[in-house]
Amino acid sequence: MTLNADTHGIYAITVTPFHDDGRLDLDSARRMVDFYRAGGCAGLTILGVMGEAPKLTIEESLAFTKCVLGQAGSMPVIVGVSAPGFAAMKGLTQGVMAMGAAGVMIAPPANLRTDDQIVNYYAQAVEAIGADVPFVIQDYPLLFSVVMTPGVIRRIVQAHPSCAMLKHEDWPGLEKISQLRAWEKDGSMRHISILTGNNALFLDFEMERGADGANTGYCFPDMLVDVVRMSAAGKRDAAHDLFDAHLPLIRYEQQPGPGLAVRKYVMMRRGIIASDALRKPGAALTPAARAEVDYLLSRLARKDRRAKV
Amino acid sequence: MTLNADTHGIYAITVTPFHDDGRLDLDSARRMVDFYRAGGCAGLTILGVMGEAPKLTIEESLAFTKCVLGQAGSMPVIVGVSAPGFAAMKGLTQGVMAMGAAGVMIAPPANLRTDDQIVNYYAQAVEAIGADVPFVIQDYPLLFSVVMTPGVIRRIVQAHPSCAMLKHEDWPGLEKISQLRAWEKDGSMRHISILTGNNALFLDFEMERGADGANTGYCFPDMLVDVVRMSAAGKRDAAHDLFDAHLPLIRYEQQPGPGLAVRKYVMMRRGIIASDALRKPGAALTPAARAEVDYLLSRLARKDRRAKV
Amino acid sequence: MTLNADTHGIYAITVTPFHDDGRLDLDSARRMVDFYRAGGCAGLTILGVMGEAPKLTIEESLAFTKCVLGQAGSMPVIVGVSAPGFAAMKGLTQGVMAMGAAGVMIAPPANLRTDDQIVNYYAQAVEAIGADVPFVIQDYPLLFSVVMTPGVIRRIVQAHPSCAMLKHEDWPGLEKISQLRAWEKDGSMRHISILTGNNALFLDFEMERGADGANTGYCFPDMLVDVVRMSAAGKRDAAHDLFDAHLPLIRYEQQPGPGLAVRKYVMMRRGIIASDALRKPGAALTPAARAEVDYLLSRLARKDRRAKV
Amino acid sequence: MTLNADTHGIYAITVTPFHDDGRLDLDSARRMVDFYRAGGCAGLTILGVMGEAPKLTIEESLAFTKCVLGQAGSMPVIVGVSAPGFAAMKGLTQGVMAMGAAGVMIAPPANLRTDDQIVNYYAQAVEAIGADVPFVIQDYPLLFSVVMTPGVIRRIVQAHPSCAMLKHEDWPGLEKISQLRAWEKDGSMRHISILTGNNALFLDFEMERGADGANTGYCFPDMLVDVVRMSAAGKRDAAHDLFDAHLPLIRYEQQPGPGLAVRKYVMMRRGIIASDALRKPGAALTPAARAEVDYLLSRLARKDRRAKV
Repeated sequence: MTLNADTHGIYAITVTPFHDDGRLDLDSARRMVDFYRAGGCAGLTILGVMGEAPKLTIEESLAFTKCVLGQAGSMPVIVGVSAPGFAAMKGLTQGVMAMGAAGVMIAPPANLRTDDQIVNYYAQAVEAIGADVPFVIQDYPLLFSVVMTPGVIRRIVQAHPSCAMLKHEDWPGLEKISQLRAWEKDGSMRHISILTGNNALFLDFEMERGADGANTGYCFPDMLVDVVRMSAAGKRDAAHDLFDAHLPLIRYEQQPGPGLAVRKYVMMRRGIIASDALRKPGAALTPAARAEVDYLLSRLARKDRRAKV
Repeated sequence: MTLNADTHGIYAITVTPFHDDGRLDLDSARRMVDFYRAGGCAGLTILGVMGEAPKLTIEESLAFTKCVLGQAGSMPVIVGVSAPGFAAMKGLTQGVMAMGAAGVMIAPPANLRTDDQIVNYYAQAVEAIGADVPFVIQDYPLLFSVVMTPGVIRRIVQAHPSCAMLKHEDWPGLEKISQLRAWEKDGSMRHISILTGNNALFLDFEMERGADGANTGYCFPDMLVDVVRMSAAGKRDAAHDLFDAHLPLIRYEQQPGPGLAVRKYVMMRRGIIASDALRKPGAALTPAARAEVDYLLSRLARKDRRAKV
Repeated sequence: MTLNADTHGIYAITVTPFHDDGRLDLDSARRMVDFYRAGGCAGLTILGVMGEAPKLTIEESLAFTKCVLGQAGSMPVIVGVSAPGFAAMKGLTQGVMAMGAAGVMIAPPANLRTDDQIVNYYAQAVEAIGADVPFVIQDYPLLFSVVMTPGVIRRIVQAHPSCAMLKHEDWPGLEKISQLRAWEKDGSMRHISILTGNNALFLDFEMERGADGANTGYCFPDMLVDVVRMSAAGKRDAAHDLFDAHLPLIRYEQQPGPGLAVRKYVMMRRGIIASDALRKPGAALTPAARAEVDYLLSRLARKDRRAKV
Repeated sequence: MTLNADTHGIYAITVTPFHDDGRLDLDSARRMVDFYRAGGCAGLTILGVMGEAPKLTIEESLAFTKCVLGQAGSMPVIVGVSAPGFAAMKGLTQGVMAMGAAGVMIAPPANLRTDDQIVNYYAQAVEAIGADVPFVIQDYPLLFSVVMTPGVIRRIVQAHPSCAMLKHEDWPGLEKISQLRAWEKDGSMRHISILTGNNALFLDFEMERGADGANTGYCFPDMLVDVVRMSAAGKRDAAHDLFDAHLPLIRYEQQPGPGLAVRKYVMMRRGIIASDALRKPGAALTPAARAEVDYLLSRLARKDRRAKV
């Protein structure tokens, strides 16, 4: 299955599981894929710029990709191919598409400033990877320092039929979703899929503004699946009730530095991965932080019975 | 009353009220001060770098400061004196201290990078304003791009007895509070007051890590007062319950751009200020955003009866 | 005289002279103005964002402005009015225009990123200062982190008849001049004045690309006047010969930090100002740097006899 | 030969030669190596973060490295191994050291801010590559946004005996060289090699402050060799005369964007490489820029007869 403009649901951004000694843990990777499928995720995203993919060697990166794609089966997998040069991006894209990826995600390099620079960058990227490969625009100004107006996104979407999705991670970003959907409605932009990020911190309202789901790594993706389903079914209060129950933990996990350690710790406690080890320069949670997460989990379990870990 | 190392509680960061046509609204300013006092705030902070103080002329700035200080009476008021040069910082400090300010807040200029640059900047600032004026370090890397390690803060604190408080707005920042308090405990740093910011998004755990309160502008400061009181009294679950009830709105108001418009809108709905007008380049909330805030308020009112607006 | 699209020549960016003890030195300021006039400068620019204008109090700023405008007489003076808010920008503009300024210079705030943000900022600035006040766009990405494409500049120029000049300080920037002049030629943009900055580091070729002169503070503005004159007269080799003779010093003075101290030191050695003192956080040249400047001056004097100091 | 604290002279930063159609041109690469050797360069640096190394695929990168190392013979070659993660940095380092590299160069990632973050990063890098591999600190704040004080560099040097060299590319940076050399003299820091960058824009005075040479890619490295030799021999005026003759072109080539195209164009005109083609997003010089370089070359040839091309 390949990515297209109608893609929706929760695309879980996977962690990269390591053993306690730092070796890649492919058993945990397979268990993780099974967990995401069982939890109702529509697809997966791997090798994003966040997380620990950049900490892998090329060989480990390939082994991990093969493992996840193999285990995912028919579940679509988006692969991050952001690279410092177009030659590497092209090579990586050809490799992962041949292995069965559903599409690729491309983040803008941090030195882009003007509207034209951004639009030109995506034109050159499409030229490099080929116009037949579905791609995702990753719009994450807080991390990349690249600000894309709705108008810039529209220019990219209109210029490239292979642009299937916006990974929407602007902050704040609700008005951006509304603007893009308004342009789709008045016919000045074709329809694309919009999945949101930022650890789902605004998923409740993003769905109501027109998002199709989320592309994020929150440690309870199964609950996000429910929020998306209830929101799509018009059960507004129920969706917010469930979302609000998770919000204290979502917020805690969204912290830029230790957030990934929080995520791995909860996934380990949930039995999904064997160890919460991070490779350097990442660091384990302090005992104080660990106790805070435990406390948040205990409070969560009282509100959402399925969240007992 | 002047600021000192034992200062604690909620110091509300005030908005700058305008009439619908953009003129300064001092009647609302006075009502706002009364509201903060009635809500249990320990003090106020004005002329911060966020908000709309930079949108005032010098004359308006002085008029607003006089008005707030006059209405505040015995309630201590911290005044932001960050300025592009030390001559202006000195003049402003002398002016507001003569008017009765409790102390001044100083943010680092965005071009500081190294530890020594930051430490030297505060040394020159203290030389300019005088060693007898209590001052607050504003540590807000997300806005200023200046990163202060705990060690840098300790160097400033130890060098300047007039440093009374850390406005802690690092993100993430829980470990920073723990580190500073550990140094106070082992005697390697003298005690200072730590009030936290970031719209109180982590106030629940910041209190448990050792914060003395918050210095923030969330539109329900009266509830933050309760969270701080309960937390200080060891009523952990109750503090979190109240905090969690407000978290969906806290998060919504914490958005960098529209957050201030959210705050003014709620304060207008609460009858504290007459208009939610912002001066340019600020913009009013869109109807969609306004409806979202209304919805959040209605949900909040069900969980916290006093929050009915 | 007011600024207009035909303004050309050297507009010297003045330093702010201090006594050795840091007090404002208006005698030196007057002598400096006389020197610039005698040296053939077409005009002056004061209160720019570089230099030491931000180190003045409001009162000193006004005194300095009055002094310079008074001494300048019929020589046009551009005044920097960049401010954190439009109310202050408006007040400052009204003040200096009433005192006889020829126009104002406006730099974009560092948080602007997208094309629309920049264009909108200048629209709001023009609304604030009035459409009848001639203004200069300051385009200096290295300092402001704001990147303006030629297209963005064209949008501002076409929208505001009061835009008289581009202070061109992009780096690299030769192609930008050529693009703007090409648009003037094909009728898609009206003519504006382009004066260049960057301490004249590329003045030789900027003139050949279509610049009208320079708006810069190099310590030998009298020589820049000659370069501009020769270049305009088509004496290419002679213009380059003179420029090249100064280039070692131009380069030395262009260094971001100590450059201003270099400039003041040379101006003191030339007898233009009484002291090369800088206000903090600026610092005097080290003895090693001072000796290097002396050596550069001695070499320069051998190539350009008038440069003997 | 491996890099050590006594390394000195000109280490040329090579370009990556392409055919007109963008394919890697190893014939030109070999000719380029021969040219650098014949011109008196002491060594080479390849795969730096500037230039076009990031535009290569892994396979091309390896082929280019093998080719250069093979042709270089006994001439030492520094290889850039900066990578987004330590696993990749380790793998790359082992690979190139096995092929015969003299040492590796490591740039700090752009997100480092505090002194401790920088020192810790180099400690982790040394742990990854092994304490027996000579490495170069690349200190280039203008490109990386990472500012290292002399004190930070001293901490790294003292902690790691394998730190052989500082690639000094701070700007301004003369006082930094003086400070480090002063610490060596007073015994508070061991001696290291300092080679400077910034396209040699300050090589004249950097040598006099204590630099051991330059590590840069200026298109006339053979002339830099002479400047270094004359400066080391105490022929101050002669060194400056030669340097000044090249300064107009040095400055032109130092421009961040088109500088690399200038360098390749001159190297093509000198017959060193077959084509001045750049891979995207790089672009060829405009005809106007090409004519300016031609003019600079013709002027240079009149001052330095060997510079005739």
